Amino acid sequence: MASQEIEALTQALAKLPGLGPRSARRAVLHLLKKREVALSPLLAALTAVKEKLATCATCGNVDTTDPCGVCADPRRDQRALCVVEEVADLWALERSRLFPGRFHVLGGRLSALEGVRPENLSIDALIRRIAAGGIDEVVLATNATLEGHSTAHYIAERIERFPVRVTQLAHGLPVGGELDYLDEGTLAQALRARRPVG
Amino acid sequence: MASQEIEALTQALAKLPGLGPRSARRAVLHLLKKREVALSPLLAALTAVKEKLATCATCGNVDTTDPCGVCADPRRDQRALCVVEEVADLWALERSRLFPGRFHVLGGRLSALEGVRPENLSIDALIRRIAAGGIDEVVLATNATLEGHSTAHYIAERIERFPVRVTQLAHGLPVGGELDYLDEGTLAQALRARRPVG
Repeated sequence: MASQEIEALTQALAKLPGLGPRSARRAVLHLLKKREVALSPLLAALTAVKEKLATCATCGNVDTTDPCGVCADPRRDQRALCVVEEVADLWALERSRLFPGRFHVLGGRLSALEGVRPENLSIDALIRRIAAGGIDEVVLATNATLEGHSTAHYIAERIERFPVRVTQLAHGLPVGGELDYLDEGTLAQALRARRPVG
Repeated sequence: MASQEIEALTQALAKLPGLGPRSARRAVLHLLKKREVALSPLLAALTAVKEKLATCATCGNVDTTDPCGVCADPRRDQRALCVVEEVADLWALERSRLFPGRFHVLGGRLSALEGVRPENLSIDALIRRIAAGGIDEVVLATNATLEGHSTAHYIAERIERFPVRVTQLAHGLPVGGELDYLDEGTLAQALRARRPVG
């Protein structure tokens, strides 16, 4: 049906998370119909990103500069370091604009099941950053999963010898969460961490 | 947060149908993490398509050749012509592999509301193709919408002077359709077009 080139484009798009074969075809048709306003900008943006793409040697963020925009920003609080599993988590926290410090991307989480051991994550690099001094607080912002918790625990043990405050994100009800629809684990966490009103 | 280039790529992807801002960000992260297996092939495919992209002067299909793959295929039945609204419809029919003939893409449907008049569609070109002879049957495969029907009616009137059989797709229950969940219009069509069993 479609030519080889169009088929290759459909398959490349279909591999993106969130797009399947059907939506990839719709996307390709959109690109073909809107060459100037859709295809050309996407091509230019991809080319620019591919040319400049860099992994930050300091924190592991992916950006078009090394050091990345966060690490290079002199206004960021150098004394606070937030440890996350993936680049996506760093971006999510950056969107909230609430964390003034810098980041450290582990590149995953400890997992016996998937055979991910401490040496597969950038934990040694994290310890070197903390050992170099100048950091007051390390926020362990791993995911609220079993593996995220184990990873945070492991790191907390490894860094307890340094004079830094080690914290983690609060657990409890999400904004807009209705008790009736929340899982028991979240409810238990929220109850356990209950606080005085006002 | 992200650099200008990454932001531009996110926005270009977010404009694709089926992708919103959130899924575009996930797609970008995927591309950044899988440079060799995801970003490079997508970039190559886009470049190839952009370079070769062509609209078939005969049928209006979008392909990387003109005439398109369908029109250029000598095995296609030259006597049957299927009229569709959009390129997407042509591709959908091609995926079913059931129509052995060629196509004619109108480029839309007549719509008083949107101000689409006969001269905005490739109806004159369709009539020239039919007038040139060699066509036995014209299948009006417009959508089963009010505007699709009006368009089919209009075309049927314009071509009734030619010695061709004019047909349209059957209407009725879709495969797997449960009566309880179908709209009254579909049920009415299915009842009106009922056929003897066996």
